[in-house]
Amino acid sequence: MNRTLAALLLLLAPLTFAQQRPDLKLTTTESFDAASIRPYRGRHQKIYDYIDARQAEHLAAIQRWVRQRSISALNEGVTDMATMLRDDLRRIGFKDAELVPTSGHPGVVGFYDAGAKKTLAVYMMYDVQPVEAEGWKVEAFDGVLVDHDLGRALMARGATNQKGPERSFLNALESIIAVEGKLPVNLLVIAEGEEELGSPHFPEVVAKVEERLRQVSGVLFPMFGQDRQGNVTVNLGVKGIVYFEMEAKGGERGGPVGAEVHGSTKAIIDSPAWRLVQALASLTSEDGNTIVVPGYYDSIRPPTVEEQRVINSMLREWSSREPSMKEALDVRRWANGWTGEQLLLHYLFDTTLNIDGIWSGYTGPGVKTILPHKATAKVDSRLVPDQTPEEALRLIRQHLDRQGFTDIEIRLMGGYPPAQTSASAPLVQQAISVYNKYGLTPALTPRLAGSAPYYVFTRLGLPLLAAGIGHGSGAHAPNEYMLVNPKEGSRIANLPTIEKFYVDLLYALR
Amino acid sequence: MNRTLAALLLLLAPLTFAQQRPDLKLTTTESFDAASIRPYRGRHQKIYDYIDARQAEHLAAIQRWVRQRSISALNEGVTDMATMLRDDLRRIGFKDAELVPTSGHPGVVGFYDAGAKKTLAVYMMYDVQPVEAEGWKVEAFDGVLVDHDLGRALMARGATNQKGPERSFLNALESIIAVEGKLPVNLLVIAEGEEELGSPHFPEVVAKVEERLRQVSGVLFPMFGQDRQGNVTVNLGVKGIVYFEMEAKGGERGGPVGAEVHGSTKAIIDSPAWRLVQALASLTSEDGNTIVVPGYYDSIRPPTVEEQRVINSMLREWSSREPSMKEALDVRRWANGWTGEQLLLHYLFDTTLNIDGIWSGYTGPGVKTILPHKATAKVDSRLVPDQTPEEALRLIRQHLDRQGFTDIEIRLMGGYPPAQTSASAPLVQQAISVYNKYGLTPALTPRLAGSAPYYVFTRLGLPLLAAGIGHGSGAHAPNEYMLVNPKEGSRIANLPTIEKFYVDLLYALR
Repeated sequence: MNRTLAALLLLLAPLTFAQQRPDLKLTTTESFDAASIRPYRGRHQKIYDYIDARQAEHLAAIQRWVRQRSISALNEGVTDMATMLRDDLRRIGFKDAELVPTSGHPGVVGFYDAGAKKTLAVYMMYDVQPVEAEGWKVEAFDGVLVDHDLGRALMARGATNQKGPERSFLNALESIIAVEGKLPVNLLVIAEGEEELGSPHFPEVVAKVEERLRQVSGVLFPMFGQDRQGNVTVNLGVKGIVYFEMEAKGGERGGPVGAEVHGSTKAIIDSPAWRLVQALASLTSEDGNTIVVPGYYDSIRPPTVEEQRVINSMLREWSSREPSMKEALDVRRWANGWTGEQLLLHYLFDTTLNIDGIWSGYTGPGVKTILPHKATAKVDSRLVPDQTPEEALRLIRQHLDRQGFTDIEIRLMGGYPPAQTSASAPLVQQAISVYNKYGLTPALTPRLAGSAPYYVFTRLGLPLLAAGIGHGSGAHAPNEYMLVNPKEGSRIANLPTIEKFYVDLLYALR
Repeated sequence: MNRTLAALLLLLAPLTFAQQRPDLKLTTTESFDAASIRPYRGRHQKIYDYIDARQAEHLAAIQRWVRQRSISALNEGVTDMATMLRDDLRRIGFKDAELVPTSGHPGVVGFYDAGAKKTLAVYMMYDVQPVEAEGWKVEAFDGVLVDHDLGRALMARGATNQKGPERSFLNALESIIAVEGKLPVNLLVIAEGEEELGSPHFPEVVAKVEERLRQVSGVLFPMFGQDRQGNVTVNLGVKGIVYFEMEAKGGERGGPVGAEVHGSTKAIIDSPAWRLVQALASLTSEDGNTIVVPGYYDSIRPPTVEEQRVINSMLREWSSREPSMKEALDVRRWANGWTGEQLLLHYLFDTTLNIDGIWSGYTGPGVKTILPHKATAKVDSRLVPDQTPEEALRLIRQHLDRQGFTDIEIRLMGGYPPAQTSASAPLVQQAISVYNKYGLTPALTPRLAGSAPYYVFTRLGLPLLAAGIGHGSGAHAPNEYMLVNPKEGSRIANLPTIEKFYVDLLYALR
């Protein structure tokens, strides 16, 4: 094969492989109908009454939690919060509650043995984001009530992400035990103090209780599931992610090694910046929207019929959501001109390759002529079933090597596979039945476009569900809040109702 | 033509055009021999004696100049220095010395009418670089003498770049006039106060005296031409440059407009960062060393026979200079594996395309998942005869447009064409004859790989020569100095000899 022909075939490769992109389409018109699931019929009036009578104490318990700093990024109050959680679990009756040391912040685990047939795992995070320097109307760790346009609110760091929902859940547990003597199911609490850091050591915490975890029927993540209008969305999955840095540096192959050199030497010196640009460019189509790494789309499975039914249930709302989403993201046109069904399918069922950042050389104002000795990019890929971080990275490395970019270093920064829960899982069905009891039939979504490390549970075949009612907002932002007493006419649940929902859910799961 | 075929041809285009790169080669083995030029035989003993007797005053004049701040970037002392230069010129006898207002800092021009047949233009810069925050052993504007490993030195900002050589030149003029009553040639001084800013308004200064400039026989730029060993290199040209920013932004074509969005939205949103990477990648070969913009090499003329003779004169030294240059630039391998003659030819006679900087999105430590709304690169191209900044930029724009990158913005930051002086120009020949008189036969180089805006003179057909003896270093660095009294045994000229060289040169040019 002569050189031109070889080059030709190489150049054509992207065209060929671009066509391997999965054709995302719907093969059924059936739609998942959450409203058709029979509302939960249980009534646990004594427990409800107990909750109603204990509201001052229950709110105080939440306030006690948000007043305890637990900023994982700054290591502020982390161990104190872990200890507070452990002690609360012990007081409730968790016999084996303990801190689990990790290479980072400790986890907390605890097992409540109700002597029940079924065991539910409860995933918790006890850490919070750092406090923003500006914008807070109150002290972020004072845990004070304020008047909010939606009603009376507890405004504090952690109010909604995630101490509010979690301590509300514990309030529900205490109420059940106070009235009935024990819980309707066994509970295995698994908490981490590094969620805001990307859960780097959570697998170490999970390993500690893996035997017990294999016995549970599902995993609950307490959250406030209502938006400002009171609507509930139930999400059944998350994408995975692989995050890495690609770097070109001067070295044996060429380019200045230790420091930048004068720009005029480009005439005779290789440029790591060009090298990185060329290596990156080899990964996608010219519009940056199709990954041309051979095999990258191969492991993506088409949406299951069940997932398609959920998608179909979303599509009615989608045409009205699309314009507001466009506005919120400040976008004039979606990638590839997609709209409607195609847009939604690619959003939730397609993998990505994204440049989070790139830098090299002089980036200040005006003119400076240098040949930088180093160029770096941060790149992430969102992963859908059945992609894995290992295989994604292997394919990228293999492609770069085959294209001759063996000099480009790849540094893995983190990653985990996607996680998926079936809409037909009893945990999901029973949660929907409880939502329906409260007149809050949820919209379902098969998956978030974002990522979370739920694979630690789903890899064991466990369904995972973030569930709850109530409303909060401002996670990772100033003036984070949870609504305690919504205004008259709101569909949002107040604190006692938030707790009653969890009571019902635990009995429904029995 | 079907789509695949069209795409195929488009993809092949770079291969085709890459082969248009000029084949730089030598067609003569003749070598320029500076030693064969007869040494200047003039002796101007009365003037030399006058210089020797005035050394305290002459050094004081240089100190007066370096003590006057003139930091163009910070607008510190600029007008005061321009006024000092003008007043000095008037005192010497320049009748029309005056400040020339520009859109930036003023220029200074002056004409000395000796009633001579010939007129020499003298290019000067009166501005200096800002002072580095750290590393200075003395106050940068105190103008003090220090002991240096090479001898006694004046250590100050501007000592070598460029006040030292310039005021030494004026000392020579004063001495000639004091002894002989007038200069042997008419002089047209053209000075700017923005050299360190890239000479953005120098054409405005030149325009002021363009009529007179058309009458001159050449342009002299006073400098200290000796290195630490006392060797002299005479440089006959500079590359031009075009410097621009390339930017991709969200907009009608896609991508977030006002701000970054969450990285997971890459699934449905175009990425300006990918777009910039792809546009940049379309400009070069995969190794970044060959420009694949069609026509980019077309206007490059081969080295003339005269230039080849100068190259041949360099080649003897080149094999020994190459390793030390490699070490100084911290490079293990030259681009394309070039060595020897090919390396030198490409260094001096080839154009470049260089990424000076690139930036987009998150560039801090760790992981942050965003889709940036903007990506920018600083790019420069060094230009050789007969390239022009306008044509270079037009070809790049045209190529981007033809490849579909019409959305990529190009912002011109500055640029000017290359400049070349012939080795056979009388100014060059006579300067060499004076160097030979001092036993300092210069090495010649046909061109610097770097750039300077000498085109303002050479476009008028004028030879331009930076010439002088003496030694200084540390331009744009702490502890800038000029050697006033070299140690015993040094081949470097002391201050009186520096001035006598200029005396001889002016008489030689008569």
